[in-house]
Amino acid sequence: MLQQLREQVLEANLELVRRGLVLYTFGNASGIAREEGLVVIKPSGVPYDELTPEHMVVTALDGAVVAGKLNPSSALPTHLILYKSFPEIGGVAHTHSEYATAWAQARMSIPCFGTTHADYFHGPVPVTSELSNREITEDYEKNTGHIIVRSLQGTSPAALPGILVANHGPFAWGKDAAAAAHNAVILEAIARMAYFTIGIDPSAQPISNALQDKHYLRKHGKDAYYGQAKDKS
Amino acid sequence: MLQQLREQVLEANLELVRRGLVLYTFGNASGIAREEGLVVIKPSGVPYDELTPEHMVVTALDGAVVAGKLNPSSALPTHLILYKSFPEIGGVAHTHSEYATAWAQARMSIPCFGTTHADYFHGPVPVTSELSNREITEDYEKNTGHIIVRSLQGTSPAALPGILVANHGPFAWGKDAAAAAHNAVILEAIARMAYFTIGIDPSAQPISNALQDKHYLRKHGKDAYYGQAKDKS
Amino acid sequence: MLQQLREQVLEANLELVRRGLVLYTFGNASGIAREEGLVVIKPSGVPYDELTPEHMVVTALDGAVVAGKLNPSSALPTHLILYKSFPEIGGVAHTHSEYATAWAQARMSIPCFGTTHADYFHGPVPVTSELSNREITEDYEKNTGHIIVRSLQGTSPAALPGILVANHGPFAWGKDAAAAAHNAVILEAIARMAYFTIGIDPSAQPISNALQDKHYLRKHGKDAYYGQAKDKS
Amino acid sequence: MLQQLREQVLEANLELVRRGLVLYTFGNASGIAREEGLVVIKPSGVPYDELTPEHMVVTALDGAVVAGKLNPSSALPTHLILYKSFPEIGGVAHTHSEYATAWAQARMSIPCFGTTHADYFHGPVPVTSELSNREITEDYEKNTGHIIVRSLQGTSPAALPGILVANHGPFAWGKDAAAAAHNAVILEAIARMAYFTIGIDPSAQPISNALQDKHYLRKHGKDAYYGQAKDKS
Repeated sequence: MLQQLREQVLEANLELVRRGLVLYTFGNASGIAREEGLVVIKPSGVPYDELTPEHMVVTALDGAVVAGKLNPSSALPTHLILYKSFPEIGGVAHTHSEYATAWAQARMSIPCFGTTHADYFHGPVPVTSELSNREITEDYEKNTGHIIVRSLQGTSPAALPGILVANHGPFAWGKDAAAAAHNAVILEAIARMAYFTIGIDPSAQPISNALQDKHYLRKHGKDAYYGQAKDKS
Repeated sequence: MLQQLREQVLEANLELVRRGLVLYTFGNASGIAREEGLVVIKPSGVPYDELTPEHMVVTALDGAVVAGKLNPSSALPTHLILYKSFPEIGGVAHTHSEYATAWAQARMSIPCFGTTHADYFHGPVPVTSELSNREITEDYEKNTGHIIVRSLQGTSPAALPGILVANHGPFAWGKDAAAAAHNAVILEAIARMAYFTIGIDPSAQPISNALQDKHYLRKHGKDAYYGQAKDKS
Repeated sequence: MLQQLREQVLEANLELVRRGLVLYTFGNASGIAREEGLVVIKPSGVPYDELTPEHMVVTALDGAVVAGKLNPSSALPTHLILYKSFPEIGGVAHTHSEYATAWAQARMSIPCFGTTHADYFHGPVPVTSELSNREITEDYEKNTGHIIVRSLQGTSPAALPGILVANHGPFAWGKDAAAAAHNAVILEAIARMAYFTIGIDPSAQPISNALQDKHYLRKHGKDAYYGQAKDKS
Repeated sequence: MLQQLREQVLEANLELVRRGLVLYTFGNASGIAREEGLVVIKPSGVPYDELTPEHMVVTALDGAVVAGKLNPSSALPTHLILYKSFPEIGGVAHTHSEYATAWAQARMSIPCFGTTHADYFHGPVPVTSELSNREITEDYEKNTGHIIVRSLQGTSPAALPGILVANHGPFAWGKDAAAAAHNAVILEAIARMAYFTIGIDPSAQPISNALQDKHYLRKHGKDAYYGQAKDKS
């Protein structure tokens, strides 16, 4: 079971590389075994092309390393807060993908400018508020998790499978590590197209709620009709 | 005959991948056998690198699946409207290619800024008007087809081999599936260069009608002199 | 001799592909055998990956095809005007490379914003004026050559190894076909960096004449000291 | 020892190619053997794919060629000034990478817009002032080194591992040639994201000093906790 999760998490991390979302050792993806309460995450600062399933670090939900000889990604505390706050998610991915990071650096949410966005995010991609100086100097990585959770209050992490951490970059999540990485890739594409959109018309407006609902609901929920039956979820 | 069409349609879909126009399972291309009244289209939500000719879905012009075990692309109803409205076309391609989609998201037609554009499109690349809420909630994909057809009224689909569906993305077409995919690639290149052009000069003006006519007509129509004789059409 | 030139011209055309300057059958490069008065150029509308040296078309300076079974590139008359007007050049390359084309579509010359530019172009990359309607409808390709020559009057084609044809795209040249393709690649890089520069500061100013002279002259002319001795020219 | 340094310097130069920072023969990286007082640098104007360790040029700190049959990179005098002024550095890399060069051409420092930047640069990426006409016409490459050193006065080259030379492009450095190339790659990524950031919000503001300190110090200095133990430095 854990061996399979290590392989899935490694594969999700490699997907970030293949899709051009990470540079050198940037970025990290993890997955959780809910019943065992164990999280598997990429080690910190190891080149992607050297990674094997055995390099993946296994930790408890309090961050204690249970298996693996390497230090876990420094983003682990953020991942753990997300797993504890969102029982429905099974994977988390964090990158500094360049267009999503630029929106995070501009501290702006990404408006829903089109149906590609609406297929995945039911509303704008939110940006967190900024951490206070105290939140930065003490327990920075945990506080990054907390500010994500606060920013999502009142919404479902399934309807908003990613967020921009102000001044930092995107986090994405999903039912497993593969879905988290997939959503990180989509978020970058959405960020890129939104960047081009405001480059064409700086006063571009979001699409209507009717169109947002149509696209989101034809891919998600009980009346979904996109894809093959087994893929509907 | 149908086997050959399946292979052509698969190949057109793969061309969209090779040219960087699609991400994951986005996008779809189809072709029609006019005499048989059968359309072959990519299945919905299947990864491109798993596709074989046998995965292609064969449907009648009313959308009924005639052969194939998978669900057709959710864009099928739009393709069918185009085939029924434009007897001269033999293939349709739809993508969310990023620059063309950005123009669609900005709800702006692409002015004819240069000869690359004029070589393929005889006039601006049009953008449709927006669908009403009712057109979105009922028969959305069919209505997407209808609004494309309405937007092209008074022009020839040969002279305008593609369009931007407002808030959504580009559709392109041609004499067969390969030509449709080709025109989708060209449309993205035109969209990209137009984006850069207004980045250099936000008040850039379209080229003269004389130059538009010259380039369009040297590649199309009876006096065309571009390419080898067998390619002139 | 002619066989070698065919191979050089093919190789120059393929360099345009490798460097991402051309799409489908766009673009063309040629070379001249001055003593024989023969020009070798890519055929029109043939996919690059099918091209062999035997496909190259050999013409006289009046455009008559001397050898080769295919139609020459439709840009041949422009190339011929350049060869006849500039005795010092041995190769010409024409592309629709996207950033250079965007400057051409904006009808703006590219200011010398930095030393990369100054290493190759001694002054701004010029843009031609626009062709009149008559120049477009009659002998269009020849007139494209004439307007390039007029725009360069008073300067040396060695000091300005390329130009933007307004509303169309770049032409570049050099001592042979390889140098022409090389300069087309450099021109695109210069165009890209200039685009980014005005994106950062729309009122960016060109570098000083002193710095322009320094960089141009350390690579060109009798006191050049860049590269290995055999490369100095 | 020298053979190993030649290999390291070649490898650093090739890293610039792999990461898309250089075009043709642009760019150069070097390394120093401090005890021997010898610098190893790429030769001038030789294509990267022909380079072997034996092509690397070995020079003394006064620029005299000690070993190697080729001319050293024309940027050698700049590298030498940096080695003599900054005893803690072991490698230097210079490129015309396109986004960093655009900031240099706009003569603007790159504000610290986010944590990716703060992970590597403790403050904005500085831009030098412009060279005077005399500094350009006499000892240009040496003066380029001097103006870099002047611009860094009062800071540590470890805390600012790169700079933009106004009108020219970036220089980066590090503990060895590999680190210098790595920092050149990072600098280009930072430049790209900063470009996108001001494209989204032209009045974007830098991040707080608290966040800058947090990210810089968690990767550098005695309390660093990023990466595996052996990598902390």
